[in-house]
Amino acid sequence: MTKAVVFGTGSWGTTFAMILAEAGTPTTLWGRRAEVVESIDRRRENPEYLPGVRLPATVRATTDPVEAMEGADFVVLAVPSQTLRGNLAQWSPHIPSHAVLVSLMKGIELRTSRRMSEVICEVAGVPAERVAVVSGPNLVGELIRHEPAATVVASVDDEVAARLQEACHLPWFRAYTNTDVVGVELGGAVKNVIALAVGVAAGMGLGDNVRAMLMTRGLAEISRLGAALGADPHTFAGLAGMGDLVATCTSPLSRNRTFGENLGRGMTMAETIAATRQTAEGVKSCESVLDLARKHDVEMPITEVVVGVVHDGMTPSEAAMLLMSRTPKPERYGV
Amino acid sequence: MTKAVVFGTGSWGTTFAMILAEAGTPTTLWGRRAEVVESIDRRRENPEYLPGVRLPATVRATTDPVEAMEGADFVVLAVPSQTLRGNLAQWSPHIPSHAVLVSLMKGIELRTSRRMSEVICEVAGVPAERVAVVSGPNLVGELIRHEPAATVVASVDDEVAARLQEACHLPWFRAYTNTDVVGVELGGAVKNVIALAVGVAAGMGLGDNVRAMLMTRGLAEISRLGAALGADPHTFAGLAGMGDLVATCTSPLSRNRTFGENLGRGMTMAETIAATRQTAEGVKSCESVLDLARKHDVEMPITEVVVGVVHDGMTPSEAAMLLMSRTPKPERYGV
Repeated sequence: MTKAVVFGTGSWGTTFAMILAEAGTPTTLWGRRAEVVESIDRRRENPEYLPGVRLPATVRATTDPVEAMEGADFVVLAVPSQTLRGNLAQWSPHIPSHAVLVSLMKGIELRTSRRMSEVICEVAGVPAERVAVVSGPNLVGELIRHEPAATVVASVDDEVAARLQEACHLPWFRAYTNTDVVGVELGGAVKNVIALAVGVAAGMGLGDNVRAMLMTRGLAEISRLGAALGADPHTFAGLAGMGDLVATCTSPLSRNRTFGENLGRGMTMAETIAATRQTAEGVKSCESVLDLARKHDVEMPITEVVVGVVHDGMTPSEAAMLLMSRTPKPERYGV
Repeated sequence: MTKAVVFGTGSWGTTFAMILAEAGTPTTLWGRRAEVVESIDRRRENPEYLPGVRLPATVRATTDPVEAMEGADFVVLAVPSQTLRGNLAQWSPHIPSHAVLVSLMKGIELRTSRRMSEVICEVAGVPAERVAVVSGPNLVGELIRHEPAATVVASVDDEVAARLQEACHLPWFRAYTNTDVVGVELGGAVKNVIALAVGVAAGMGLGDNVRAMLMTRGLAEISRLGAALGADPHTFAGLAGMGDLVATCTSPLSRNRTFGENLGRGMTMAETIAATRQTAEGVKSCESVLDLARKHDVEMPITEVVVGVVHDGMTPSEAAMLLMSRTPKPERYGV
């Protein structure tokens, strides 16, 4: 029988463990904090991230990474992106030799500009064929109510992707396979930057045409970056590209969008950070994305003005003016 | 100097005339009704469709099609889709021999399942190189306030597209060229069907994951149909595909979405039609789209259930169940 371990008891890690278990894959959650782990193991509840949600009986929890990985076919990683390298270095000696490593993470490593699957291959010393990623429009608040959703499971090895698809497919959770790991990961990382831009425009009082334009031209620039990095442009029209972008840019719950909205209303960065308490992911990753783009000579005008507004004191009106005054172009270029 | 005529004084036709005139292209609006034409010509206002909006002095209006077309380089057609054939048959003898015919229309002809540009070529007896189409996320309510927006101008002849781009490009209205007329037209026509599905889901109380899934998988099925008809799949990731779909599916003003919402809440078709007074475009076109799909052996599961709900008495829950119980698939197939 297929078994899985999920590292990380955050809301998405816990929810994915629930999905795996419901799909017939017994799953162990690893967490650092004893009280959270104990509550999951004894009461089937994660009181911190998913209070009130009852987890299936086939979800267990432990603080011991070695015990957690015993006999696991899928080692799912759902820790904060910037902690992956350090954590995985400790765990990797104990990963079963046949296990597939699965990333649920949507960041790009600072300084190295590496995608999460690249960090996994490097630190765990595994070939790309043993790595998969999961990404799509998967707002946790709806998944825990078992509302219908779909996601992408990607691996360069399509048999690996198909095995993971089988391990997590449910009547209400449709998993689609894809072999384009680069595209799926870039979609998840860059969409937060575009959501910031969409938020800024909404804060300035602009409407649905502008939002649709920013999302579409934002996806076009993600696709150009993807093409330069060897991704399949079609991935960006899929669930991990357009799908996730749509959910993030139109949901009132998106932190990145809300952060941008405050900036668009005229708040300073300091005021915005104070108002939202948490920093939005796009604020960190917009610089790594722009670094990647410059390294590969890719034009990303929206990302550029987001970096300008967030880090270099550009005003939202200056950003809008810059975008709208670019020379007219064919719709598709650079892909 | 480039001159244009716009046939049709509806809100989009009038707004596009305003855009052309502001971009430096003197434009004549042709309308059937003397009082509307007179108001536009004398008071620069279309009281019926755009009350309170002042049109530029270089927009003129007339009820005489022959006078309207005199010296026109662009003959823009913005009449109701199903009346195009009859109207154009009357006008075509007077179209200047060098003029480009431009479609602003987003329908598919009933019975023939022809796209508007096909009807134009057939009725006016012009080659495809003399036809262009304009489509994108262009909600009129925002355009008349000069809020930023973008659109696609498409023609199989890229010089024709570039000339039209030049004739309508403005600092606040970005026109992108594309040579894929088939894709641009299909995007505009099929998006109304997907908006109906999104509305039904919203009416059932489903959330942002479902909406993102329907929009993304909806675009995937538009792309499959497009591929079968010779369109470029990339067009569907652009402004006339994803862009227009996003604007239509997320704007509270969309008639198709609202129509679907009422069905999703449990209203019958008769009650829904009574509640919305106007029939939504997708209600008519979903059958022509499905006909096209069947003729070309293309799977369009969302369109299929929309036809089921709208025309064959399928309940929204049955539709949801049908969609979610399909066999798991690779994300991209049939393109």
